[in-house]
Amino acid sequence: MLTIETLVGFVAAFCTTVSYIPQVRKCWQTGSTGDLSLKMLAILASGIALWVVYGFLKGDMVIIIANAVSLALLFNLLFFKVRENASAREHKPA
Amino acid sequence: MLTIETLVGFVAAFCTTVSYIPQVRKCWQTGSTGDLSLKMLAILASGIALWVVYGFLKGDMVIIIANAVSLALLFNLLFFKVRENASAREHKPA
Repeated sequence: MLTIETLVGFVAAFCTTVSYIPQVRKCWQTGSTGDLSLKMLAILASGIALWVVYGFLKGDMVIIIANAVSLALLFNLLFFKVRENASAREHKPA
Repeated sequence: MLTIETLVGFVAAFCTTVSYIPQVRKCWQTGSTGDLSLKMLAILASGIALWVVYGFLKGDMVIIIANAVSLALLFNLLFFKVRENASAREHKPA
């Protein structure tokens, strides 16, 4: 049965999950991640992975699905950030 | 009593909450938010506000506290982003 909690949870999950899409698109278009903090992305990804574990422990599907999708999108951002950092090191004069 | 769920939840909450701190610091230092997506920040803030509501409905303190602190930090980022956008409009030649 659809309770008000589940509904609010799903809308919350939907928002926090799709929120990363415009950021991923921006990175795809510009390839630029200079203003993004690598520390933020790394700690956020660890935290969101733990939320997935929390969802499993609580048997809460809303928490599991929302955070699993967020994690997949975050890995995109991490990829761009790490690639930009690697390329910056490569092109730095010795 | 401290259950394993609560512990995982607290560590998850701690990570996702403190993750915004390096990003806020970066924005304070550089004042630059060009690579941040305003859409992401706005949708993320709405979603996190709804997670707080979800926490209240479920009576889950971990969810309430984690998301309330995240929301406060996100408002910092939104402030920088909106300020930069406003300033960009101001300095654009007519």
